[in-house]
Amino acid sequence: MDVRDYIAASAADFSRALREWLAIPSVSADPAHAGDVRASAEWLADYLRETGFPVVEIWETGGLPSVYAHWPAADPTAPRVLVYGHHDVQPAALGDGWDHDPFAPREAGGRIFGRGASDDKGQVLFHALGVRALLAARDEDAPPVQLTMLIEGEEESGSPNFAALLRQRKDELKPDLIVISDATMWAADVPSICLGMRGLADAEITLTGPSRDLHSGSFGGGVPNPAHALASLLAGLHDADGRVTLPGFYDDVVPLNSEERALFAKLPFDEQGWLADAGDSRASYGEAGYSTLERIWARPTAEVNGLWGGHTGPGGKTIIPQAAHAKLSFRLVADQEPGKVIESLKKYLNSNTPNGIVTTVSAGTGVRPCRSAFDSPGVRAARRAMQRAFGTEVLFAREGGSGPEADLADILDAPLVFVGVGVDTDRIHAANEYVDLSRLLLGAESVAYLWEELAEASPAEESGEQA
Amino acid sequence: MDVRDYIAASAADFSRALREWLAIPSVSADPAHAGDVRASAEWLADYLRETGFPVVEIWETGGLPSVYAHWPAADPTAPRVLVYGHHDVQPAALGDGWDHDPFAPREAGGRIFGRGASDDKGQVLFHALGVRALLAARDEDAPPVQLTMLIEGEEESGSPNFAALLRQRKDELKPDLIVISDATMWAADVPSICLGMRGLADAEITLTGPSRDLHSGSFGGGVPNPAHALASLLAGLHDADGRVTLPGFYDDVVPLNSEERALFAKLPFDEQGWLADAGDSRASYGEAGYSTLERIWARPTAEVNGLWGGHTGPGGKTIIPQAAHAKLSFRLVADQEPGKVIESLKKYLNSNTPNGIVTTVSAGTGVRPCRSAFDSPGVRAARRAMQRAFGTEVLFAREGGSGPEADLADILDAPLVFVGVGVDTDRIHAANEYVDLSRLLLGAESVAYLWEELAEASPAEESGEQA
Repeated sequence: MDVRDYIAASAADFSRALREWLAIPSVSADPAHAGDVRASAEWLADYLRETGFPVVEIWETGGLPSVYAHWPAADPTAPRVLVYGHHDVQPAALGDGWDHDPFAPREAGGRIFGRGASDDKGQVLFHALGVRALLAARDEDAPPVQLTMLIEGEEESGSPNFAALLRQRKDELKPDLIVISDATMWAADVPSICLGMRGLADAEITLTGPSRDLHSGSFGGGVPNPAHALASLLAGLHDADGRVTLPGFYDDVVPLNSEERALFAKLPFDEQGWLADAGDSRASYGEAGYSTLERIWARPTAEVNGLWGGHTGPGGKTIIPQAAHAKLSFRLVADQEPGKVIESLKKYLNSNTPNGIVTTVSAGTGVRPCRSAFDSPGVRAARRAMQRAFGTEVLFAREGGSGPEADLADILDAPLVFVGVGVDTDRIHAANEYVDLSRLLLGAESVAYLWEELAEASPAEESGEQA
Repeated sequence: MDVRDYIAASAADFSRALREWLAIPSVSADPAHAGDVRASAEWLADYLRETGFPVVEIWETGGLPSVYAHWPAADPTAPRVLVYGHHDVQPAALGDGWDHDPFAPREAGGRIFGRGASDDKGQVLFHALGVRALLAARDEDAPPVQLTMLIEGEEESGSPNFAALLRQRKDELKPDLIVISDATMWAADVPSICLGMRGLADAEITLTGPSRDLHSGSFGGGVPNPAHALASLLAGLHDADGRVTLPGFYDDVVPLNSEERALFAKLPFDEQGWLADAGDSRASYGEAGYSTLERIWARPTAEVNGLWGGHTGPGGKTIIPQAAHAKLSFRLVADQEPGKVIESLKKYLNSNTPNGIVTTVSAGTGVRPCRSAFDSPGVRAARRAMQRAFGTEVLFAREGGSGPEADLADILDAPLVFVGVGVDTDRIHAANEYVDLSRLLLGAESVAYLWEELAEASPAEESGEQA
């Protein structure tokens, strides 16, 4: 029985198990559900033990628990692979627009509906099916790689305790490769591998002028107006080419290379449809010299998320406002650091704030961007594996959001490979989240092949291969 | 008995009469006080009849009444002078910080306290005393000019019916000169004549991008952000020299001439004290090449009075906002027109709004600026008259605010002369408004001399005189 046949034969059992797990409302953001998150971890631990993982543990953190599972390879020199995913879910309630109870999962028309179906329980669980299928097909009782799973319980709450857990368990984990199983493809019929996620730096700035609003009839034209200064500072964040002007902003940006750009360009991108999704935006706009996909995936940005100051109620009020404010966020790409960007913002504001105005900056903690090199051995192996499973060319994409991936790569000092089968239409974080069962089965098949590809690929073979 | 002696002998009666008038709460903004505004008009009409004006009428308008009084000269070819003032007052209540009932006026330490003491009942009433003093000194029973008073009842409510009244009564009024008796001097010991008031054009602008707020992780960097476009448009309103960039903005501005600038420069202006009054502003700033006084008096401005858009609450929200807004006002100087400025603003916005953003403009009605030429015969006569009364050099100034003066000048087609004895410290529009009785008496003396100066000055004499 080959991998595909094994998976097909197991589909009904897999669906049933997933729905059992989805029924546990493991909402990490709601303290009332802390017990459910623990029950979810225990359910997964039991399931992975049944799957055959010889070592399965609940790993406690300062918050909600992670699940650790390890299955050594027969060959102790085989590559060490760490699979990351999460078992907590976004909040969901019938009142939010769900057609059915989000925690009473159901299968209908080949789709599994329920909170977490796609993000991320479905994409975690296919790993259990994948490794079983591979062992059945190879008639072996250990995988060809040292397989570790680490499934977090607080991803939807910003992973507040995960970095500490990684630092603490670093020596046990020490992977050669990290497989991120919490990602999307371009479309159900256009499989793709994510090559990175943008990070974030954010800040609120306040410009203060006079100690009170001034009558513009008496003082207008004679003293600096904080709203003018704010407008100039915000306008000056971009040059005429749409590039961010902060000093050194692009210094750490890993540039897109021509192969990656060519692969992006192969994606069937419908700009008009995308603009319609973008709130019926009338035109695309961004950094000169880059396509829309490159701009939103692979280039850093500066955005004004909000601004306010002075009189904003009905009617006119002829004042020079006392202060003006803006909320800014910068989408970052590897290897930019949120802290460095905020320092550069402060320098820019200090250098450009006019005499008579005082500018203060209050920054958030930020999220670091992550990337996965498209020509790395791991990504090449994943691409071959997915091409075998999907039977079609696998392209490359990126994603806008970002979780703890940068911490995983940095703390564990290993490259990332994104293998996900979610798609944008899965309604993740929204009402009526679902996933196609067939996609999860293709995910299981992909990772079965991936362990094989990784075990068989030698660095020497890799280096000569063309992507 | 000369003019000064007559006035000194009448001071107690004058104070008593003014306090009687101030006791009538003629608050035009409050419909509950409409009867009081009418009572105030009737009080004044009676007083002017007692003063000797042969013709005194209540002039009805679409709103609250004005008072008209006329006293023909013995010589029917004498200049026709129209005195403008107003008998309505700003709202006032004990709870606003008054030490005494604002409508129970009192004299203490040479000051008369009460709403309207300076603005404008005190400055209206000294005309009655002035003309009586002049007649007594000359032992005549008619003034040397054709003297008309028109005292409005809705100035503190924006004069909504006054222009219509002027148009209707234009042929009766047809003045050679309009004396505005609702103005201030530089200081009690630095008499000055106001040479103009700035006008106003105001507008609210809205920039719309997508039909809803967009997630900046998914769309940031790919579509135009209305907040960026707003910042650029607002920043672009001024050039590096602080000049307003709207096309044609300065075309109608009557430039300051060197004599007027020299006279402004003679005013004892304490910039540090002015900055302290300006909400402890840290530095002056404005159009390059002009002093602070020139900037706030004689140069037009563009001010952002308020701006808002996107997320303005606590915390961060990584969005591209759907829209961004600003409230703008332009202080105008003669001969700028509010309507032309708004048209130019629209042109500027149309030319500079980036592709993908739609800008809309909603404009107010505006206020036209007015001016009084410092070398006109009327201003020269007023300066001589005030110098005789005050016994010191009379300088020139301007004011920030503006009432119906531009309508008076335009509809009646006559030059303006500002003869006021208010000062900035009179607390007009604020609690504990007061006026020095001595200043009102100097006002009475000034206008007594002014009628004389106007009657005696011939255009031929004037043209050769140095200011």
